[in-house]
Amino acid sequence: VPAALVTLPRVLRLVATAFVLLALTGGCRRHRVVHANRSIAVELRDRALTGSKAFEHVRDLATVVGPRLAGSEGDRRAVDWAVAKMRAIDLAAVRAESVTVPHWERGVERATLDGRPLAITALGGSVATPPGGVEAEVVVAESLEALDAVPDDAIRGRIVFFDKPMVRAVDGSGYEAAVDVRARGAIAAARKGAVASVIRSIGTGGGRAPHTGGLRYDDAVPKIPAAALAIPDAAFLREALAATPGLRLRLELGCRTLPDATSANVIGEIRGRARPDEIVLLGAHLDSWDLGRGAVDDGAGVAVVLEVGRMLRERGLTPRRTIRIVLFANEENGLRGARAYAAAHARELDAHVLGLELDLGSGPVHAIHALAGPDSIPALRAIAAPLAALGIAPVDERPIHGADLWPLRAAGVPVVDLDQDATRYFDVHLTADDTLAAIDPRELDQVTAATVAFVWNAAESRVTFGRIPADARR
Amino acid sequence: VPAALVTLPRVLRLVATAFVLLALTGGCRRHRVVHANRSIAVELRDRALTGSKAFEHVRDLATVVGPRLAGSEGDRRAVDWAVAKMRAIDLAAVRAESVTVPHWERGVERATLDGRPLAITALGGSVATPPGGVEAEVVVAESLEALDAVPDDAIRGRIVFFDKPMVRAVDGSGYEAAVDVRARGAIAAARKGAVASVIRSIGTGGGRAPHTGGLRYDDAVPKIPAAALAIPDAAFLREALAATPGLRLRLELGCRTLPDATSANVIGEIRGRARPDEIVLLGAHLDSWDLGRGAVDDGAGVAVVLEVGRMLRERGLTPRRTIRIVLFANEENGLRGARAYAAAHARELDAHVLGLELDLGSGPVHAIHALAGPDSIPALRAIAAPLAALGIAPVDERPIHGADLWPLRAAGVPVVDLDQDATRYFDVHLTADDTLAAIDPRELDQVTAATVAFVWNAAESRVTFGRIPADARR
Repeated sequence: VPAALVTLPRVLRLVATAFVLLALTGGCRRHRVVHANRSIAVELRDRALTGSKAFEHVRDLATVVGPRLAGSEGDRRAVDWAVAKMRAIDLAAVRAESVTVPHWERGVERATLDGRPLAITALGGSVATPPGGVEAEVVVAESLEALDAVPDDAIRGRIVFFDKPMVRAVDGSGYEAAVDVRARGAIAAARKGAVASVIRSIGTGGGRAPHTGGLRYDDAVPKIPAAALAIPDAAFLREALAATPGLRLRLELGCRTLPDATSANVIGEIRGRARPDEIVLLGAHLDSWDLGRGAVDDGAGVAVVLEVGRMLRERGLTPRRTIRIVLFANEENGLRGARAYAAAHARELDAHVLGLELDLGSGPVHAIHALAGPDSIPALRAIAAPLAALGIAPVDERPIHGADLWPLRAAGVPVVDLDQDATRYFDVHLTADDTLAAIDPRELDQVTAATVAFVWNAAESRVTFGRIPADARR
Repeated sequence: VPAALVTLPRVLRLVATAFVLLALTGGCRRHRVVHANRSIAVELRDRALTGSKAFEHVRDLATVVGPRLAGSEGDRRAVDWAVAKMRAIDLAAVRAESVTVPHWERGVERATLDGRPLAITALGGSVATPPGGVEAEVVVAESLEALDAVPDDAIRGRIVFFDKPMVRAVDGSGYEAAVDVRARGAIAAARKGAVASVIRSIGTGGGRAPHTGGLRYDDAVPKIPAAALAIPDAAFLREALAATPGLRLRLELGCRTLPDATSANVIGEIRGRARPDEIVLLGAHLDSWDLGRGAVDDGAGVAVVLEVGRMLRERGLTPRRTIRIVLFANEENGLRGARAYAAAHARELDAHVLGLELDLGSGPVHAIHALAGPDSIPALRAIAAPLAALGIAPVDERPIHGADLWPLRAAGVPVVDLDQDATRYFDVHLTADDTLAAIDPRELDQVTAATVAFVWNAAESRVTFGRIPADARR
C-alpha cells in the first residue's frame, strides 16, 4: 500500500479527533451538546445502517418465543426471554415488574354461508357463540353511522356485517378511519338487537388471513360475539348478499375469557453518567396477538430498542442521562402494562425527559412527530439533525405516538414518534402472516439507525423539553 | 377531419378485405388455411386482449361456487354451475358425463412444538391421527434419498420432517423438483417405522397458509398421517430443532375418507362446419382443493376455455372442426375425470386432432410446447403465428402438458401446452390464498387471447398432427 494512502486517513482522523475534543471541552459552547453528540450519533447511525443485529433479535423472539398474547404460556416465555436478553446485552438494573393482565383464549372459529366456508377469526375479547353457533340473516352496514340510520326492527335477531374498507396509506391513516367498527361495532349492533357482529378485516392486502384486534363491550348492552372476515371473504359475502338477499350466515366461536393472569413489564437501563435521575424512556411492547408470531407487531420494535442498548453497551458509551428501555406488557388487549408502569413510577414521571415507543413494524422512518412543552421543536430538531441523512423529515408538532405512551402523555411527559412507512404494515398486522417473512432486515437497520442516533442525542442533551400543556394531554 | 385522413383507412380496409377474400377463395392455395384464419385469429386475439369476459367467469366460479373438492357439496354445485354456464354461452351438446370420484374430507388440524402452535394442513388423502394426536421426536430429512441413508432405528417411532425447499422459477420447474416428498414421503417414512410425515409446503412465498396437495400410499406399507407446514413454520421448526435437538412435535389430524361419490365431466361443443367428427379438445379442470376458492387452480383455466367458447358463439364463428370444451372432474386428487373421459370416448380418440389444457393459473403465456406426430412442429408453428405478437416463443417439442391430458397422450393424441409464467403461481397454489385476489385480469386476458387465437387456427386447419410416437406416450 503506498504510504500516501495510509497517511491521508490518519491525517483526517487526527483532524476529526481534534474537532471532537474541541467540541467536548466547550470550544464552541453555545452549540456544544449538539456538535459533540453529533459525531457519536452519526457514527452510531452509520454502524446500524451497515448491519445492526436488530434482525437477529426479532428472529429470536418470533421463532423461539412465537405468539405471546397476554396471560398465555407464550407471554410468560417472552418475559423470561426479555430478561435474559437484557442481561446478555449487559443492561443495568434489569427487572420484570409484575402486571396483572387479562387472559383471553381463542377456540374453534367457523363461518359458513349456505354451506360455503368463509375465513374468519374472533375479535380479541369476544364472547363465544352458543355451542353449535348462531345462524341468522345478514344486514350490511358500511359504518357505525349507517347502522344508526337502520330501524331496529331490521336488525333485531340478525347478524350485522360492517363492510368498511381500509385505505392503504404511508401514514397508516386508513386504519384510524376504519377501526371504529372493530372497536365499537359489537356494542352498536347489540344495542339494536343483533345476535352477532362481523366486520371486514381492518387491514389491507388480499390475503386470506383475517385480521383480529381488540373490541370493546359496554356493560349496559348485551355482549354479542364479534369476528372479522378475511378481506376476500368479506368481498364474497357482499357479492353473495347482493345476488341473493336474505342469505343466512352461520357463525361459531369458541373463545373464552379466563381469570386475570400475571405478566410483567421488562425493564433495563443504561445509567446516565451525569444526570442518572433524568430518564429518556425508549419503549416497545413485548406481547402480541395469538394468530401470528409477533414479528412486525411488535417484535420489530422490541428488536430495535434492544439493539440500541446493545450497541451502546458494546461500545461502552454512557450518555449524560439514563436511557430506560421498557418492554411493555399487554399493549394489545388492555394497555395494562403501560398503566402499571405509570402507576409504579408515578413519583419519577417528572424526571422523564422524553418518551418514545416503536410500534409500527419494520418500515423505514420517514417523519418525526413530537408533543412537548412550548417552543421545544427547535431543540428536538437539533437532536434529530443526524436523521436527515436517512431521508427523514424534520420534527413536526403532531399528537402521534405509540399507545403505551398514553399514560405518560397524560402526565405531561413529552412524547416523540419516529414515524415509519406503514404502506405494507397493515397487510399482515394482527394476522397469522405476522412472521419474520414480513420483515426486511435492511429496513429494520434504517429504523435502528434513526432510533440510536436520536436517543443518543436526546440522552446526551442538556436541553429539557418542558411538559405537554394540560389541554394537549388528551 | 381532413378528407385524406378519412380516405386512407378506407383504402387500407378495402385492400385488406380483398386480400382476405382472395385467401378465402383459394387465391394462394398452398398457405390458404393459415392466411385465411390468421385474420380471424388476430381479430379474436385482439378483442380478448382489450378486455375479455374471462375474469367475470372466474369471479363467478370462485365466489358463487367457491371450493369444490371432488365429492363435496361444492363439487356438485360446480357441476350445476358449469352446465348452466355452457348453456348460457350457447354451446352445443352440453352434458354432464358421470364420474365416480374419491371423497376425502379435512377435519381438525393442529400441530404444536413444545406448546408453540405451527400452521399446518393435512395432505389430501391423508389418514387421521389417533384422537388426541401423535407426539414424537422429529427427524429432519432433506430429500427421499437423504432419508434412505438414515438407519431405520433412528426413524422408528418418530416423525419425519422433509425440509426440501422449492425454488421459484418462471417455468415452475422447482415444483417438479421438490414435490416427490409430498407424493411419496409418507410411504418412505412409514417404511422405516415413522409414525407421521410432515413436509415443508411445496410452494413459494412467505405466507402463513400451508400448501396441501395429494399424496400416495402403498398398500404394502402402513398408512401414516401426512401434513404440510407453512413455509415460515417449517423454517421455525428447522431452527428450533437445530437449537434444541430432541424436541417433540404433537400432530393432530381429523381427516377421513368417505365412500366414493359421483361427480361429472362437463362438456360442451362448437360443432365443426366441415369436419364435425374431428375434435380439438380444449380442457381445464372444474374441481379444486378445499382450502382456497379455486380461483387460480383452476378457475382461471375454466374461465379461459369458457370465454373462448363464448367469444366464438357470440360472433357466430364456426370452424371447420369441432371444438370440444371439457371441464374435467377430480383432477386434484385422482384424475378420475380424465380417465373416465378417455374410457367413455375410447372409440373417438383417433378423431381427437389435438388436446390442450389450461391449468397454471393466470400468468401470461410465454411459450408453447407440443408433443405430436413426427414433423408436426412447422405446422403447429404456423397455427401459433398470431401468438408471436403476445410475446410468446415459437412452438417447441417438449413433453409438457396439463395432467388431464395423460390418458389422451397415452392413446397417442397430440398434446399442446400454452405454457404460462408460473413465477407467482406457487405462492398461492393449493392454499387458502387461492382466491380472486391472486388473479390479474389483464394477464388473464393475455391467456385468453393466446388460447382463442391458437384454438381457432387449430380447429380451422386442414393439417393433422399425426399421433405421438409409441415411445413418447409414456
